[in-house]
Amino acid sequence: MPIPYYRAVEIARRLSKGNEVSALRELLEPKPVESEQPPSVLPGDRHSRADGRARRLEFLEERCGPLPYLSGRGEEVDPEDLAGNIENYIGMACIPTGAIGPLRINGLHANGDYYVPLATSEGALVASYSRGARLITLAGGAAAITTVEQVQRAPGFRFATMAEGIQFAAWAVGEFESLQEVAASRTRHGRLVDMRVQLQANMVFLIFDFHTGDAAGQNMVTFCTTAICHHLVEHTPVPIEHWVIESNMSGDKKGTSLSFFDTRGRHATAEVVIPRALVQSRLRATPEQIAGYWRMSLIGGVQTGSIGVSGHVANAITALFLACGQDVACVSEASVALNRMEVTETGDFYASVTLPNLILGTVGGGTRLPTATECLRILDCLGDGGAPRLAEITASLALAGEVSIAAAICSGEFSRAHAQLGRPPGATHDGSDNGG
Amino acid sequence: MPIPYYRAVEIARRLSKGNEVSALRELLEPKPVESEQPPSVLPGDRHSRADGRARRLEFLEERCGPLPYLSGRGEEVDPEDLAGNIENYIGMACIPTGAIGPLRINGLHANGDYYVPLATSEGALVASYSRGARLITLAGGAAAITTVEQVQRAPGFRFATMAEGIQFAAWAVGEFESLQEVAASRTRHGRLVDMRVQLQANMVFLIFDFHTGDAAGQNMVTFCTTAICHHLVEHTPVPIEHWVIESNMSGDKKGTSLSFFDTRGRHATAEVVIPRALVQSRLRATPEQIAGYWRMSLIGGVQTGSIGVSGHVANAITALFLACGQDVACVSEASVALNRMEVTETGDFYASVTLPNLILGTVGGGTRLPTATECLRILDCLGDGGAPRLAEITASLALAGEVSIAAAICSGEFSRAHAQLGRPPGATHDGSDNGG
Amino acid sequence: MPIPYYRAVEIARRLSKGNEVSALRELLEPKPVESEQPPSVLPGDRHSRADGRARRLEFLEERCGPLPYLSGRGEEVDPEDLAGNIENYIGMACIPTGAIGPLRINGLHANGDYYVPLATSEGALVASYSRGARLITLAGGAAAITTVEQVQRAPGFRFATMAEGIQFAAWAVGEFESLQEVAASRTRHGRLVDMRVQLQANMVFLIFDFHTGDAAGQNMVTFCTTAICHHLVEHTPVPIEHWVIESNMSGDKKGTSLSFFDTRGRHATAEVVIPRALVQSRLRATPEQIAGYWRMSLIGGVQTGSIGVSGHVANAITALFLACGQDVACVSEASVALNRMEVTETGDFYASVTLPNLILGTVGGGTRLPTATECLRILDCLGDGGAPRLAEITASLALAGEVSIAAAICSGEFSRAHAQLGRPPGATHDGSDNGG
Amino acid sequence: MPIPYYRAVEIARRLSKGNEVSALRELLEPKPVESEQPPSVLPGDRHSRADGRARRLEFLEERCGPLPYLSGRGEEVDPEDLAGNIENYIGMACIPTGAIGPLRINGLHANGDYYVPLATSEGALVASYSRGARLITLAGGAAAITTVEQVQRAPGFRFATMAEGIQFAAWAVGEFESLQEVAASRTRHGRLVDMRVQLQANMVFLIFDFHTGDAAGQNMVTFCTTAICHHLVEHTPVPIEHWVIESNMSGDKKGTSLSFFDTRGRHATAEVVIPRALVQSRLRATPEQIAGYWRMSLIGGVQTGSIGVSGHVANAITALFLACGQDVACVSEASVALNRMEVTETGDFYASVTLPNLILGTVGGGTRLPTATECLRILDCLGDGGAPRLAEITASLALAGEVSIAAAICSGEFSRAHAQLGRPPGATHDGSDNGG
Repeated sequence: MPIPYYRAVEIARRLSKGNEVSALRELLEPKPVESEQPPSVLPGDRHSRADGRARRLEFLEERCGPLPYLSGRGEEVDPEDLAGNIENYIGMACIPTGAIGPLRINGLHANGDYYVPLATSEGALVASYSRGARLITLAGGAAAITTVEQVQRAPGFRFATMAEGIQFAAWAVGEFESLQEVAASRTRHGRLVDMRVQLQANMVFLIFDFHTGDAAGQNMVTFCTTAICHHLVEHTPVPIEHWVIESNMSGDKKGTSLSFFDTRGRHATAEVVIPRALVQSRLRATPEQIAGYWRMSLIGGVQTGSIGVSGHVANAITALFLACGQDVACVSEASVALNRMEVTETGDFYASVTLPNLILGTVGGGTRLPTATECLRILDCLGDGGAPRLAEITASLALAGEVSIAAAICSGEFSRAHAQLGRPPGATHDGSDNGG
Repeated sequence: MPIPYYRAVEIARRLSKGNEVSALRELLEPKPVESEQPPSVLPGDRHSRADGRARRLEFLEERCGPLPYLSGRGEEVDPEDLAGNIENYIGMACIPTGAIGPLRINGLHANGDYYVPLATSEGALVASYSRGARLITLAGGAAAITTVEQVQRAPGFRFATMAEGIQFAAWAVGEFESLQEVAASRTRHGRLVDMRVQLQANMVFLIFDFHTGDAAGQNMVTFCTTAICHHLVEHTPVPIEHWVIESNMSGDKKGTSLSFFDTRGRHATAEVVIPRALVQSRLRATPEQIAGYWRMSLIGGVQTGSIGVSGHVANAITALFLACGQDVACVSEASVALNRMEVTETGDFYASVTLPNLILGTVGGGTRLPTATECLRILDCLGDGGAPRLAEITASLALAGEVSIAAAICSGEFSRAHAQLGRPPGATHDGSDNGG
Repeated sequence: MPIPYYRAVEIARRLSKGNEVSALRELLEPKPVESEQPPSVLPGDRHSRADGRARRLEFLEERCGPLPYLSGRGEEVDPEDLAGNIENYIGMACIPTGAIGPLRINGLHANGDYYVPLATSEGALVASYSRGARLITLAGGAAAITTVEQVQRAPGFRFATMAEGIQFAAWAVGEFESLQEVAASRTRHGRLVDMRVQLQANMVFLIFDFHTGDAAGQNMVTFCTTAICHHLVEHTPVPIEHWVIESNMSGDKKGTSLSFFDTRGRHATAEVVIPRALVQSRLRATPEQIAGYWRMSLIGGVQTGSIGVSGHVANAITALFLACGQDVACVSEASVALNRMEVTETGDFYASVTLPNLILGTVGGGTRLPTATECLRILDCLGDGGAPRLAEITASLALAGEVSIAAAICSGEFSRAHAQLGRPPGATHDGSDNGG
Repeated sequence: MPIPYYRAVEIARRLSKGNEVSALRELLEPKPVESEQPPSVLPGDRHSRADGRARRLEFLEERCGPLPYLSGRGEEVDPEDLAGNIENYIGMACIPTGAIGPLRINGLHANGDYYVPLATSEGALVASYSRGARLITLAGGAAAITTVEQVQRAPGFRFATMAEGIQFAAWAVGEFESLQEVAASRTRHGRLVDMRVQLQANMVFLIFDFHTGDAAGQNMVTFCTTAICHHLVEHTPVPIEHWVIESNMSGDKKGTSLSFFDTRGRHATAEVVIPRALVQSRLRATPEQIAGYWRMSLIGGVQTGSIGVSGHVANAITALFLACGQDVACVSEASVALNRMEVTETGDFYASVTLPNLILGTVGGGTRLPTATECLRILDCLGDGGAPRLAEITASLALAGEVSIAAAICSGEFSRAHAQLGRPPGATHDGSDNGG
């Protein structure tokens, strides 16, 4: 986003699946805990002792089946099975994984109470998200939706002159339907949904937008765009001096203003209204204080020249991506976000997070690795249809973290939490002794 | 950077350790393989079979001691030992890890031939870095240096009026030495090295720059800044309406233009000159072609409004951070980079990568986790003195990847590599069938 | 740009006016001075003496009719005639105006040899542009083209919840054709050509793109969008909590990354290839030196976090806008640009400038002021059909300045020119004595 | 800003001139109209008829002496007197100029009630600023202050290797005092106040910050930096391959994130608290509505990737610069701003504008042109000591405009004002008929 109106029309049609768009409103409404009791809080909260771990695993296995690899009971993976994921394999890097929940989500694709696995080595992180999730759940859950879904490849073409570039561009845009067919011949899961052209003097950049099904899609769009380029190179009416499959306009593996507007991956938003009383009792701050902090953080962010402005959504995305076999290098782009925190007219607290660059998938890539498969199963996101659900969970999780950190900063607990939870066993009270 | 001259004078003194700065030149010079033979290439290259893994592990264990956890022989970690790293522990997320090398680095802190562990689930990634490392080594190695080292916390203070804010700011800057003492009382490893002030109408933002020793330092700077704020709040000559420990000006967990200039974490650069013949034989492209591609990629990047411009340094940083127990959420900021590729006056190929936001550490945080400890040992970066070395290795590794991908894009191999290495066993030739 | 393919198809059709796009190539080709002799250089070059002025005026009046107001012979303007341009009128601010030329332009809309009036008080500016224009003309002229033309208004709507926002957005995009009719009822010259939607949690931003004929168009788009908003507010299927005609997403009066990609106003590009011999003899620098400088300036620009990267195009735009009655406040957005300077494969010098945010018009606004009318007549741009021509002239002029300053910086003449031409009469050789 | 603490200490000393900084508070306090009656509103408000003009001129001439050129009574300027401002002179471009006032400013340098000349051809602009100025004055005036003052030049140096670049940089920073002397030998009015260094692989960028007295200073810093570069080139301990006086890191003539933080020109801020009753009666909107609009405009701005976020400060700066002989091309950088609008705890309305890139001067350049001299005299800003005063007036004027437009947008008057005042005499009600 911003997307052209005709794309928006299509997307609205896809999301409403033939129903009235107004039906969405019911799905996204809060579901008060008074009327719909959430399931139990994950047992053994915050403890890292062996018995707590066992109780949590037992609880999760009852809900979603066996988790042998997380439990440490799985057989060692045969390196041959890792072909396609790694070369020069020497072993597994193991990252501690905790879980939180339930996190109530009232989404189009994710709708229910979720337990969320988070992989990290940063103390206090899981606890902070746990607190935010609890609060959101007590408030009736986060509304969440995934709308635009598209992944880009952006080849570049250089010509002797601008005039030749224009002739090429004018021809190429007329080929759109042919290029859709070329793409369709290379993939069953993806679809070329749009094509944009940027004329830069004697260079022409084409930006291809693909819907990539439930895959993250970077390889899919590379293969399709390669085929498209070969078609263009073969049929071009003017000589191309030089071309490349990727001109650095796709935004792959980096935060860019262009992706921030236009959606790269999936565009997901979550919002919540938390009653004033709940904010004050649970967060030890008023809605006004948190909203005041948010305005300062926005001014702070604008002054630094960041792309988008938010708190620490990178933490949510990284921990979830790591647990779920996602391409964690995409944190560079996926962590670009915009949060908002306001006081409603009724004096309650409104918060939202928008994540327009969620490159993620639930098929292919690292999702078939043993612990990733188990984590995706905990989230009910494994396989076909899982990707937009995972996107809505990610946005809701990020929202939990934004609310939690903002409140901690307002109430002076930010430093305290890290002092208590960010130390190794036996550390003294001197914060620096752990070198952290 | 850009840093004020007086800070630069200090840094030059620290880097040269009392010697002439000119002595650096010898350290950073290429070391031709003809005169200094590199050690063997890591055996079993590219194969993911069990025997290849065993040979690689044996080779690495000979050089740096036992690697029981990477080998799968380690005992399961006691959850209690994970306190300080995780809450609500359920198990380990396991990420496949490969290794490349040797990568010759002629750095101030990293100087020698390194084998580098990389954790990822993205096929073709390790192979691409391996190719780049090979080329750099054959060219005599990458020059690398870590210069500025500083981590920020940026509290914000709001006053009734701008006039009161100015009075506060004028007072606070005069307190710098007292604040250094306050900070020193909270940490033995860190040091408050600079303080900057930003007046924003009735808000005052203070940016504190800390040297954090070999720690990544986010907790250290939080604790110190908390103490500093309490000092300021106690002694302020004017009433503060509202203050927060972090105003979102520190750049924590996000890419910002401010951090891109000013260094957040460590500022590391690597460069290499690769003889034309080597480029042509190994990369199947000419220096002119790659430099032409670089210019297009720079124009592409500028058009997208990215912060800095580079190729895929996020891949290098993520894979190395994951292997080495770093805070991977920092990829959001650490992946901001600037690369350059040019033809030298002698027709050879010049490339460099500058990484000004490398938040990393070799003590504390996730570095004490079993597989992280082993990976840091492979790199000779574990513990005190390791952090600037790890920064120079990261920059050199990123350089290997930038050169490799640029050449792949120029020679048309980009798509081919992913088609060959980015598929699971048994996948068909239709790129999309793995959903990736 | 980047624009969607279907818009590009339309634009290609508009530009080629039913002809083959390939016909453009002939129009844009260089016209060597050997075969097409340019008209005389504007007489009295560089002198500010009265006789030089008289000769220049006589020369220009012969070509384009009487210029009484520039000549100082015009009657004082009746304040009543200024209604629509100024309130609380006290008099005229007078800005010195020089002229350069001929500047040969091989454009789609501007095609021929142009004399260009420039209003400024910065010494050396006119001389620098004159030098660049001379060089471009000797090289056969600049190819120039205006492609995308659109001006935005971007109202914002806030809803109680995101769900209601989505319902509104889904409805609004389906209304596009009705909204086109609403717009058409408010203007005879403008046309609503596209509509984009940005969902931001419970806010919905609509970006309307208008073609505004030969007007700059800010008022036109405001009036049309007001009518559109009233239509939306009247028919909306969900209650709107709050709405505004401009949400700050249009980019009005500020440089933005979004406008830099997407075109705000007119998107114009000019390029030139200058033979190596001409560069060396006229600019006292080699193509390689200037291209090397350009690369450094691009790296410099990227490091500062500018939007686009160029030299001093603001000077060209401001001086031309001032002379021609444009809204000079638009320099804030119009000066966002991207330049390129390279060595061609034949060793010649390639340069281009792309200006994607040229808010300008040749009807309405300040264009009917006496001296503005005369300056527009000098350029053959007054009235209908003039706007795309003025855009191509602006781009070609900017190109002349970029080439001239780059060469001056390379040859060490940058400082010298200012020392010679940037001083008042009688100033000493101490550069600072004029306080400038 | 953000500036290092030691610079801030110096600046605080300069601003307080030996007094307590707390004395500033009295200067900046509101001066209620009840206790200090403002002078008359400029007569003939809004009318553009000849008699209104005459009355306004008479009023202004009584206060600040004869204004022959604005009145149209001045003799034609001798072209020879324009040497240093223009080459190839053909005549004067004349821009309609209105005036508003009084605007009450409680500043450090500007303190009193000001009448402000504004040159523009955009109808409704002067009226909008007039309304804002009236409101600020009724609220007791705007607090305003100019703090940091510095103009940059940023030469770039390229070396064969990074190691040589580092050696050069380490040497150059140690030369700071010598370079100050070199600069001092070239100017009596300027002073080299800081020097920053940016290492970019084998390139070294030096950013020199100069205090330029009351001059805009671009030429001054060019001449001084030229001398500095010659000193560096002569004494460098390592060979420089290539160097240029300006590497595009100074931010000259373009908006950049770096200048936005760091101050380029003068950093000026104005703020005002307007009682709720005054807002509601004069602006027909509540503080809450305007603050709500501001938040949406900030979100809008962040989404577009602008540098800073504000409304239309470019209008204020351009109209004032044009009237006062400033380098209007600097609008490209000077219009980068940050505004804020909030509801105070007492329910009143708080607004501020920060302008960190005000390149302006009151000596040299265009300030000696006849109408510019008169406009500067109206503002009591002509000559020595005038520049910081002009900066504070500019910020206060910009504030008046931000408040006025925000209120107009909230109350639905934005479109109406343009429909009434943005049309030429005799225009019909169809907004587009004037083509504007």
